[in-house]
Amino acid sequence: MVVDSSQPVTVWRNLRLATMAETGQGIGRILDGALVVRDGRFAFAGSEADLPAEFRAAESRDGEGRWATPGLVDCHTHLVYAGNRAKEFEMRLAGASYEEVARAGGGIVSSVKGVRAASEDELVAQTLPRLDALIAEGVTTVEIKSGYGLDTDSEMKSLRAAGRLAEARDVLIRRTFLGAHALPPEANGDKAAYIAKVCEEMLPAVAAAGLADAVDGFCEGIAFSPDEIARVFDAAKALGLPVKLHAEQLSDQGGAALAARYGALSADHLEYLSEDGARAMAAAGTVAVLLPGAFYFIRETKLPPVDLLRRHGVPIALATDSNPGTSPLTSLLLTMNMAATFFRMTVDECLLAVTRNGAEALGLGDEIGTLEAGKRADFCLWGVDDPAELVYRIGFNPLHQRFRGGQ
Amino acid sequence: MVVDSSQPVTVWRNLRLATMAETGQGIGRILDGALVVRDGRFAFAGSEADLPAEFRAAESRDGEGRWATPGLVDCHTHLVYAGNRAKEFEMRLAGASYEEVARAGGGIVSSVKGVRAASEDELVAQTLPRLDALIAEGVTTVEIKSGYGLDTDSEMKSLRAAGRLAEARDVLIRRTFLGAHALPPEANGDKAAYIAKVCEEMLPAVAAAGLADAVDGFCEGIAFSPDEIARVFDAAKALGLPVKLHAEQLSDQGGAALAARYGALSADHLEYLSEDGARAMAAAGTVAVLLPGAFYFIRETKLPPVDLLRRHGVPIALATDSNPGTSPLTSLLLTMNMAATFFRMTVDECLLAVTRNGAEALGLGDEIGTLEAGKRADFCLWGVDDPAELVYRIGFNPLHQRFRGGQ
Ligand SMILES: [Zn+2]
Ligand SMILES: [Zn+2]
Repeated sequence: MVVDSSQPVTVWRNLRLATMAETGQGIGRILDGALVVRDGRFAFAGSEADLPAEFRAAESRDGEGRWATPGLVDCHTHLVYAGNRAKEFEMRLAGASYEEVARAGGGIVSSVKGVRAASEDELVAQTLPRLDALIAEGVTTVEIKSGYGLDTDSEMKSLRAAGRLAEARDVLIRRTFLGAHALPPEANGDKAAYIAKVCEEMLPAVAAAGLADAVDGFCEGIAFSPDEIARVFDAAKALGLPVKLHAEQLSDQGGAALAARYGALSADHLEYLSEDGARAMAAAGTVAVLLPGAFYFIRETKLPPVDLLRRHGVPIALATDSNPGTSPLTSLLLTMNMAATFFRMTVDECLLAVTRNGAEALGLGDEIGTLEAGKRADFCLWGVDDPAELVYRIGFNPLHQRFRGGQ
Repeated sequence: MVVDSSQPVTVWRNLRLATMAETGQGIGRILDGALVVRDGRFAFAGSEADLPAEFRAAESRDGEGRWATPGLVDCHTHLVYAGNRAKEFEMRLAGASYEEVARAGGGIVSSVKGVRAASEDELVAQTLPRLDALIAEGVTTVEIKSGYGLDTDSEMKSLRAAGRLAEARDVLIRRTFLGAHALPPEANGDKAAYIAKVCEEMLPAVAAAGLADAVDGFCEGIAFSPDEIARVFDAAKALGLPVKLHAEQLSDQGGAALAARYGALSADHLEYLSEDGARAMAAAGTVAVLLPGAFYFIRETKLPPVDLLRRHGVPIALATDSNPGTSPLTSLLLTMNMAATFFRMTVDECLLAVTRNGAEALGLGDEIGTLEAGKRADFCLWGVDDPAELVYRIGFNPLHQRFRGGQ
């Protein structure tokens, strides 16, 4: 956050800002807005009337009255995978049972096979179009989880591929190790042995190579128990890595409270979250990441308890959960519309959820997610009359321009 | 449909075709496909093995194994309007009642005010970004209804604006007069007088100016009764215009059977369709146009009776219903995903619904909607491994190239 004040500045005037700053009301609307960028960061973000004298003389760019928001943050994706599961989707619609799909080679096992068989280059090449779809809508930060490799080499390959996306495109990628996503076929049902491998072999190797910013798990009847997840979290903590958790998606396992005990950055999904879980998250400052794309695609009927989260003051983020099996979604704008439509989140809640709260869910709250002096100058200009349109429209992209570090 | 055989031909080889032809099975997959375009129409569409000798010698373009489909048809939209209703959406999410929204100037009246106040140029300018969103996903034919003017001048202005879109973009526009959409505020609740005006003043003026290809109405408790709609249909028939109807969206009014009695091209929405209605539609060859965007946006829970339509052999089309109040949707690809997810329509049903059956719903079944010799060479090439991906993905556009009349 050291800004070199000898650097040239870019001054934007005639903007309308939705700063998303905690100091503002709602999304922090400022109708006579100005932004000053120096050395890739905001040197000023606020009302033109408050523009410091040192920037007043500088030549300025005309924002033409456009609305500016922080660059969008997609804080929960499984973007790196090979192949897709369209055939499985087609079979299910034609009436096939889960068993028939599995016999035909479908299910998560098909994604594991795909990732294991693919080269790192292939993973990068297949992921780029999905990343480009997110970027085209103003996303500047994307979290990407491993979890389709499920052995040390394949998990590391996925995370290396995720890292290479940031060389291919101007985007901040945060990588999360999700070895505890599912049991690989060769484990033959032995969860304890696989979790030991995750903790003793996979995670140390990933950490030593600097391939992960956080560690995640899937706590569910069909995946891993709270005790198994706790082992993974202990190993993560020992390596100094923050944790997050897929929790309470299909049943209440007490995953959110477990995550909160470990000071998790976020607990994600949360359809079956209990009041105790919400209270624990609030106390720990754990962000609730809701994933309406998965809710929609698997035709879930149990709504995440948004009122409970509001009542306990748990910050809510939204993300695409982009993945081949339960959310083949690559639009964060549509994600907001779904959260409003299905979950009755307000316009302001949706917009905060893909900016400030998305950044918090990644531990990047000091760095991105709002238009505030000192933060990275990641921002978007939109062709809308009001930010509410970003939530209201369905399948429409009003992005005018996207900036990363002011560029 | 006269093809000038002296014209030069363009031969495409190495394509995979989803012809959508009734002669094929499902979507008419042909894995060794070729297309020949002459004078803007297909001179051949089928397997390379069947390519007539006259085209074999011609230089050919390499389709690189891509999937080709007919250009997509969005057969039910209200695309021409001014302003939007994002603020109303925001108010509703914040807990405002319909009455509060209405007092704040929301509801359909706000769209009527917007269209009446806008110039024809403004209507064109505001609609183009929405049309461009459809076109970007491979749509080559769009139906557009009036119905936010509700007086002769404003209805005609809307329909002229719709026509001008086809000058601004390479797309086929079909225009539908929807004077019987809602009662304008100045009618003071007198439906009979307004319907008389629709029949005796508005419709004749629209027809005389050649501004409409069809006539539509909204048959519903909150709109017009079957008797009132019958008056409009009689007037349309007298002028030689085909009809269609918004029917059974919120309740069973017998609208579908009424439409079928008038040989309607389509009956649209149909959540509350009865078996009698389905039977009448089947007998009349009336297409069922389902609109999952509106189903989603208004959070309808009554599903349209897809099984009933299947059982009676009623062709099903899908459309965006793009409109500011109940379906601010501009993605026909997403429309297919919603129809699969909400209505459990199969992949093949969804793809036929936005091609062949969409064309039928506009009375254009002889002209577009399939890859068949004699039809207009409107087609798309896609960056997918299988057409199922067009339905499976959410918020992703895999269009490679779009052709209108072979160009
Ligand atoms: Zn996930
Ligand atoms: Zn409509």
